[in-house]
Parts: sequence; structure tokens; C-alpha cells
Amino acid sequence: MKATMLYGPRDVRFEEVAEPKILKPTDAIIRLSATCVCGSDLWPFRGLNPITAPMAMGHEYCGIVEEVGSAVTTVRRGQFVVGSFCISDNTCPHCRFGFQSSCEQREFMSGAQAPLARVPLADGTLVATPELPADDLIPSFLAASDVLGTGWYAASAARVQPGSTVAVVGDGAVGLMGVLAAKQMGAGRIIAMSRHKTRQDLALEFGATDIVSERGEAGVSRIKDLTKGVGADSVLECVGTKQSMMQALQCARPGAMIGYVGVPHGVELDGAELFFSQRGLMGGPAPVRRFLPHLMDLVAERKINPGKVFDLTLPLADVAEGYRAMDERRAIKTMLRV
Amino acid sequence: MKATMLYGPRDVRFEEVAEPKILKPTDAIIRLSATCVCGSDLWPFRGLNPITAPMAMGHEYCGIVEEVGSAVTTVRRGQFVVGSFCISDNTCPHCRFGFQSSCEQREFMSGAQAPLARVPLADGTLVATPELPADDLIPSFLAASDVLGTGWYAASAARVQPGSTVAVVGDGAVGLMGVLAAKQMGAGRIIAMSRHKTRQDLALEFGATDIVSERGEAGVSRIKDLTKGVGADSVLECVGTKQSMMQALQCARPGAMIGYVGVPHGVELDGAELFFSQRGLMGGPAPVRRFLPHLMDLVAERKINPGKVFDLTLPLADVAEGYRAMDERRAIKTMLRV
Repeated sequence: MKATMLYGPRDVRFEEVAEPKILKPTDAIIRLSATCVCGSDLWPFRGLNPITAPMAMGHEYCGIVEEVGSAVTTVRRGQFVVGSFCISDNTCPHCRFGFQSSCEQREFMSGAQAPLARVPLADGTLVATPELPADDLIPSFLAASDVLGTGWYAASAARVQPGSTVAVVGDGAVGLMGVLAAKQMGAGRIIAMSRHKTRQDLALEFGATDIVSERGEAGVSRIKDLTKGVGADSVLECVGTKQSMMQALQCARPGAMIGYVGVPHGVELDGAELFFSQRGLMGGPAPVRRFLPHLMDLVAERKINPGKVFDLTLPLADVAEGYRAMDERRAIKTMLRV
Repeated sequence: MKATMLYGPRDVRFEEVAEPKILKPTDAIIRLSATCVCGSDLWPFRGLNPITAPMAMGHEYCGIVEEVGSAVTTVRRGQFVVGSFCISDNTCPHCRFGFQSSCEQREFMSGAQAPLARVPLADGTLVATPELPADDLIPSFLAASDVLGTGWYAASAARVQPGSTVAVVGDGAVGLMGVLAAKQMGAGRIIAMSRHKTRQDLALEFGATDIVSERGEAGVSRIKDLTKGVGADSVLECVGTKQSMMQALQCARPGAMIGYVGVPHGVELDGAELFFSQRGLMGGPAPVRRFLPHLMDLVAERKINPGKVFDLTLPLADVAEGYRAMDERRAIKTMLRV
């Protein structure tokens, strides 16, 4: 089969590779219904993470089970499944505590920008739908695999409550999914920080009530104005830079939680400042598996439409263009038809 | 009257000062039933905070209302009251959000190591009992003013739940109150970190199920052993040093919250480390006022006995010895009889 390999900065190749095989009795092989490019795929693409050997790319996936290992009991050939980018057994103490992204057997998914992929720990990782979904729901199921689950976790970690005032820092796919999550959790006001018209429009469609296009101090000051000087009850930090984290902390009211899911780059926090400002923090790699059954139900019942975050769809063979479009910010998120 | 003034490092004087007067219509004057020395009083005592002018010491208090300003409506002369070390109006948005320690009108109490003290914003700050309490309950009501409320906040911020495994870093008065709070919140296991026999005994009396006397890496490793390698569900950080914060973070399981109430000194947190270890943080000056009515009920109903944290009682005139005993760790906490 042909699949996506990254050889070096900006060197994405769609090339012949061996088909994945069951390696352990707990594995499953799935035939992808669709796959996509993640914002985090751009780090190695941009050369920010070193590449020492060709990398099999792709960690967001949904599809039809092709084959299962002998120990797999909860999914079977022919079922439609979605899994998280974090492979987890869903039985260890960390999984049972709801933090499957810290599973004792955690692996990160790879090789999903391909027609077939191997999913380790299939019983713990995959969730099947009762029946095969309609085609138009595939993008939304695919979103549940990572960006929706990550935005949802940000809102959960920020403890969004019915009626909350929520600020979302970051207008990438995850930030937009954070807006959708906050809306589903009953937030009364959702302030999306975005400077880009298409992303602002999508944020509004997903439930944002206010758009703040200013950044830095001006952005903080706008949010303070919008909240009568109080600040947001919950803040979703979906970027990971020092500037975005400072913005998130300063937009928050005392006692607010910041749910942070942008992988921090160069972020240092001063203990005394955090203490006296009385802001709380919870974040990390999203335990998508915790939320997956609920998110898949919402998609199946057409209560949410997270698939709208894909504003570019390409055949899998054009995966390299999919990376370029996101790198150049011509696309929010690229879906790849298999 | 004679009251406690700090003139410089280790220079505590009990000397004649003017009696406090109502300065604003929202003030109250209380006659103290008892007062005490706080761990935080030791910072200026030890010269760690600069002293530019003589300071009126004392911020923990309970007593009988002597006089109220013309605007005060919720407490009246003759009532027994307890207040927080944070003065708050209890009506601003931060107070209504449960963070009275970030009140828009916040002041810090002072001058309570004295027979009489002025309490600003009396309506928002003071809570009265329905009737005058028995004398033997005074130490416990006094503890509610700061250390009990602060330990309680640490447990609340760490999200202690029924059945939780809780680790408490710090065996000072606040840490010991954190043990008591975790017990009241239904924690299944409470691991107190302490190297001192008298404090270990008190921790056990307050509800600790395990004592860890090791510190640093050895302490972390003991807690991992006690929790089958998992770590604690909730951690209370009641010291504020870099070492204690690192210990708290490392004792916690992924997804755990650290409730931190020790004022951080030299604590820097690396964003990426915090992210990947998936520990949450919430802390700051305790909003004691939020918990005060409940804590006072527990004391009045004799369900808790936090007053046991006072292991030295002196006449107010001997306040300087009270400071020295705590400074030299001869006492956990000194109560002063007025």
C-alpha cells in the first residue's frame, strides 16, 4: 500500500510501504474511512522536532476493523471504530482515574495517514459504533479522535459549568473544538480570541458569543472590558507559547481554572505569581478515550458537527499538499480521503 | 492598652498603644477571646520580610463585638464572632465566586495580638455564632480564622473526594489542619509527611492513616510504595519551598490536583514538565470566609477539635516568648490568652 512518510523538514512522501500486520494478540488492523493532518504534525514538518529516520505519519483515525488479534474481545471485523491518538489499555489505575493519556502502557499512535493502520491495545483504545455511520458523519467521527477530544478536555480541565463565562485562547482546530465543547457544557458566554475571519466565523458557528481579535495586553484588556473587569470563569489555552499562556492567565478571574492543551514551548511559571493571582492550572495530553463514547453519541445523534473544522479535503495521495496548506495557514485542518 | 509590635528582626514588644477606634462606618471593634502567632508572622520576625516601621502584629482572631460602625447590619455588640485573616466585603464578584481572598476590597488583618482589634468590612468578614460558645471551644474557633480555613482550602483546591488517597506535604499547623480537612471530606487514606514525633502524633489524631518521615526522593518513593506505584489522588502542599513543591508534584498521580497554600519562595514551574506529568495546581491565599460558617458549625457541634494544634498557651503579655517558641520549633503554634 502507499502511505505517508516524513523524511525531513518539508519532505512528505506518499510511498509504497508494507501493509501493517497484527504484531501482538491485542492489536487490531483498521481500514481507514478518513484520516487527517494534525497541527502537531507540523512540528517535525517544520523541522522543530529532529527527524533521525523516516517517520510513519498520522495519529487521527476512524475506520472499519479489518482484523483483530486473538486476545481482542470488544471489537470485531466489520465494525466502525474510532480511537484516540493515545493508545491505552483502559484498565490500569491511571485509565480508571480518567487519565488514559497517562496509561501505564501508553503509546502514541502513528501511521494513520494510510489506507490501513495497526492499532495496539485495541480493546482499551477503540470504541465501536452500534452500526455503520452515514458517510457525512465520517468527518465528525474523525475529529473525535483528537481535536474534538482535546478541545473537550481543555473545557473539562477548565471546569466549564452551565452559565460560565469562558475565554478560548487559540483559533486552531483545537481552540475551535474548545468553543464547541464549552457550548455543549452550557457555558453562558464564550469569548473566542481570533484574528482570522474564517476562524472567527467558525467559532461563532460553534457557539462563540464574542470575538476578540486583539492579542497580548490589548486582548486581555478587551476581555476584562467584556466581563466588567472580572475576567473569565474558565480559560482554554490551546496554543502553548509563553505569550498565549500569559494571556490565558491574565484573562482568568481569581479562582478560575486554565485548561491548557497547547504543548508548552518555553513556558515558565513563577510560583509566587501564580499563588497570589490565584489561578488554577490543569492540562496535558488529552485523555480523549474518557470522552470518546459520549462524543461519538453526540456525533451519531447529530447534536454536534465538529467535522466542519475540516476546511480542506484532499485525496490521501495529495497528503503533502495537505501539510503545506496547513503550514501556510491556507487551511485550518486538512482531511484526507482514503 | 498593651499590644504586640514588631520593631525589627526578633524584636517583638508588648507595649502601650492607642485603643482601636471605628474609622469607617463598616468597621467593628472586637474584644479578643484569644489570639495566636502564625507561621507567617515568623517571616518578618526572622528578618525575611523588611520592616521599615513598627508593625502591629496578629491576624488570627475571635472575640466579642464591642462596637460596630453605623453601616454594620449583620453583627451587633455582644456577639461572639470569628473572621478571616483576609478582610472581604463578601459581595463583590470575586467573593461571590468563593474567592474572598481576592476580594475587590481585600485588606489583610493586622493588630490582632492585642486585647482589642478593629475589623474593617465587618459585615463581609465576620461570622457570629448563635450564642456565646463554651470556653473550651475558643481555641478551635480561633483556629478557624486562619490555619483551619487554610488547610481546608488546600484540601478543597486539591479536590479531595470520599475515598481519596491524600498526601500532605508539611507538618506545620496548616498541614495538620489539612489532614483534619481531608478526614472530614471522607478521604480513605491520608499520608502525612512528618519527621517530628509530636507532629506525627497529632496528624494521626487528626485522621492520618500513614506517616512518611522521609523527605525528597526517598519520601516520594515511600509514597509511591504506599500507593502501589500510582501516587496520591490529591496532594496538599503546605510549605512553599521549591523542594516541598517538587515533592508534592512527584507524589501526585497523573490527573491529581495539588492544593498549594504554602506561600511559594523560589518556586519556578516548567510548563512542559507540568503538562506531560499531567498534574493540576490550584492555590493561593485561602478564601477562609467561604468555609467559615461550615467550619464554625463543625466546631460548635464538637465534630472537630482543631484547637489541639495549639501546643503552647501563654498570656498575651508573653507574646515574644510565643514567637521564640515557634521560631525554635519548640511549639507548633502558640495561643495567647488575652
